[in-house]
Amino acid sequence: MTHVFDVPGGVTAPIGFKASGVACGIKRRNPAQPAPLDLALIVADRPCATAAVFTTNLAIAAPVTVSREHLAASGGVASAVVVNSGCANACTGAAGLVVARQMAEAVADAIDARPDHVLVSSTGVIGMPLDIEKVRRGVALAAAELSPLGGDAAMRAIMTTDPFPKSKAVRVESAAGTFMVGGIAKGSGMIEPRMATMLGFLTTDAAVAPDVLQRALRRVSDETFNAITVDGECSTNDCVILMASGASGVTIAADDDPAFLEGLRAVAGHLAREIVRGGEGATKLVTVEVTGAASHDDAWLAARTIANSPLVKTAIHGGDPNWGRLVAAAGRSGAAFVLDRASVSVGPIDLFVAGVPHDERADQAAEVMKAPELTVTVDLGTGGSHAATMWTCDLSAEYVRINAEYRT
Amino acid sequence: MTHVFDVPGGVTAPIGFKASGVACGIKRRNPAQPAPLDLALIVADRPCATAAVFTTNLAIAAPVTVSREHLAASGGVASAVVVNSGCANACTGAAGLVVARQMAEAVADAIDARPDHVLVSSTGVIGMPLDIEKVRRGVALAAAELSPLGGDAAMRAIMTTDPFPKSKAVRVESAAGTFMVGGIAKGSGMIEPRMATMLGFLTTDAAVAPDVLQRALRRVSDETFNAITVDGECSTNDCVILMASGASGVTIAADDDPAFLEGLRAVAGHLAREIVRGGEGATKLVTVEVTGAASHDDAWLAARTIANSPLVKTAIHGGDPNWGRLVAAAGRSGAAFVLDRASVSVGPIDLFVAGVPHDERADQAAEVMKAPELTVTVDLGTGGSHAATMWTCDLSAEYVRINAEYRT
Repeated sequence: MTHVFDVPGGVTAPIGFKASGVACGIKRRNPAQPAPLDLALIVADRPCATAAVFTTNLAIAAPVTVSREHLAASGGVASAVVVNSGCANACTGAAGLVVARQMAEAVADAIDARPDHVLVSSTGVIGMPLDIEKVRRGVALAAAELSPLGGDAAMRAIMTTDPFPKSKAVRVESAAGTFMVGGIAKGSGMIEPRMATMLGFLTTDAAVAPDVLQRALRRVSDETFNAITVDGECSTNDCVILMASGASGVTIAADDDPAFLEGLRAVAGHLAREIVRGGEGATKLVTVEVTGAASHDDAWLAARTIANSPLVKTAIHGGDPNWGRLVAAAGRSGAAFVLDRASVSVGPIDLFVAGVPHDERADQAAEVMKAPELTVTVDLGTGGSHAATMWTCDLSAEYVRINAEYRT
Repeated sequence: MTHVFDVPGGVTAPIGFKASGVACGIKRRNPAQPAPLDLALIVADRPCATAAVFTTNLAIAAPVTVSREHLAASGGVASAVVVNSGCANACTGAAGLVVARQMAEAVADAIDARPDHVLVSSTGVIGMPLDIEKVRRGVALAAAELSPLGGDAAMRAIMTTDPFPKSKAVRVESAAGTFMVGGIAKGSGMIEPRMATMLGFLTTDAAVAPDVLQRALRRVSDETFNAITVDGECSTNDCVILMASGASGVTIAADDDPAFLEGLRAVAGHLAREIVRGGEGATKLVTVEVTGAASHDDAWLAARTIANSPLVKTAIHGGDPNWGRLVAAAGRSGAAFVLDRASVSVGPIDLFVAGVPHDERADQAAEVMKAPELTVTVDLGTGGSHAATMWTCDLSAEYVRINAEYRT
């Protein structure tokens, strides 16, 4: 029997990790306010199994290239992750790659680790060079402030214009023993245009071999971080990194270990939904459930199309139980779809049942849509048993305002 | 040598066609204003070769199903197209199919044609039943008003909330003789939610066999109507129909006849761009050019992703020469993309050249972006020779307002 309890501490809740967050001048400073935190360091007490999933965008940012190289060279082992906010070090050419490598070397020197045991991550403006001198100053400060209570500072240092910070940690009590999983993430609040990056940094004190860790992370990421959308835009810098210290003494031998997946899902799922809730201009967190799909791929294709449909997202913003838009989005998704057997519900209210409209229930559905969180369910009517769940937010005029505002 | 000249008359400019547009009460009437036109009839003097392309949405509206059946039964011959606005007759089940067939029969009776020589089309609210008695009244009125000068009335009768009507006709002077191509179209202005349909009705007095006509229409539609996007939403009712009366005496024997394609492109291209210019909340008409693609499919995939990217569309709305968003959209599109060789231009201003940013030109690009029409060009950097051109509009807060407004 597995029990999962929330605990404080975020990425430093698991045993064996220290973290810090400092200000080193990469983000522009408002003179009336304290300098904003813009460099985070997460360090394991010793080199440990590390897994990562990266953006699929072919316009890959330099830090993603370097982290991928380091993980390949080390065979899935790392000692530290360094993250700066305010500059994405993306579309910066060969010079950007040099800076990303220097960033790893600076951390390696500061904590006495191998450079290829340091992973690097950046978020912020695309196309702007990253100032390595500021990074070196930040790394020195951050190394001096490393603390087992540093998870909150690290959480704040990776934010760009996220409306709120995102952190989660759980204690998992399983038959095999008790271990922790923690994490921090950033989404996109985007007041300054050109910023858009989803970053997640997870830790656990379970003992997990690198290949098992990688498969478990891939699996859970697909159900959590890869199942969210704010605007369908995959960034140049997206990454999720998971480090396993083993300090709890609990060994996880298989990537389908139920207790480990449950703990990982609790942390990753929470952070993923928080990213959507803090999406640009978002006022509602929407769960999109697709059922009755003929295949796994069809279920995800339909869910993704619905979750990214501007007409669905604006209807939800306006509180309009406009089931026709959900039907039209499912119908154009490319997934098998049988109109005469398809159904649509908003919360518990069935608005379209096996091809028959029930607009007399529109007022009830409109009531449901006033809540800050709601679920829409579309059955594709194929009789298939495949299903998918995604999280999205509404599309508001504020989204347009944030992203159309000319950078100053 | 082929010459193409603009002429008035729209869908009735070619010889051999009459049209009309009438009010029959399908659209709700504002008591302070005349009843809005909501039924259009386009009739050929005799049954003629007819081609059509329909929505690929699997939530197919009843009129699309019936028109497709009729064209299949007649082998690509039709006498008339009847179109109502105000009700899409979509998601209306078996009853909707009966109404769509009755609509064709009413026209067949009124003009003494075979029912399967009548094509039907509807646009408006999804899920609402279409009142056949109103349609019958409208068909009787429209048949009585048929005129070779009726193209303008038909053009107005197919509008829902389009901000302006859309019509175009050309006279083509070619080595083979002189013929005309005309057309009308509607896009989506969408003040009432649940509406979204692109309809185009084209005519020519060239003599063209049905199979040649169908291939030519498919070809030109792919470069025009299928190369536009307002919000990436493919409707349940989209259709383009082309009728060829042959009354000019000019025979077009091949689907790649340059003069015929040039005439058809002039009409279809104009109508397609007008639909984008009148898109919901649109303030700018944007041409998206993709070059340097490794394949035809890659060029279109990248162009489609860029043209639908909310971050690209909001940046254009804000006049922000944010080339990073164009790079990121191309990179995530799934098309082959080589960052170090990729380039981005806004109008004539090169902002990113072979992987190197030129932000010193951002002010010049911002000037270019003040115009109501602009071109953005992205070279994917693969060295391939494939290219694609799409038309899109910016994404404004007005789009959100229009589509979030609760129907009353």
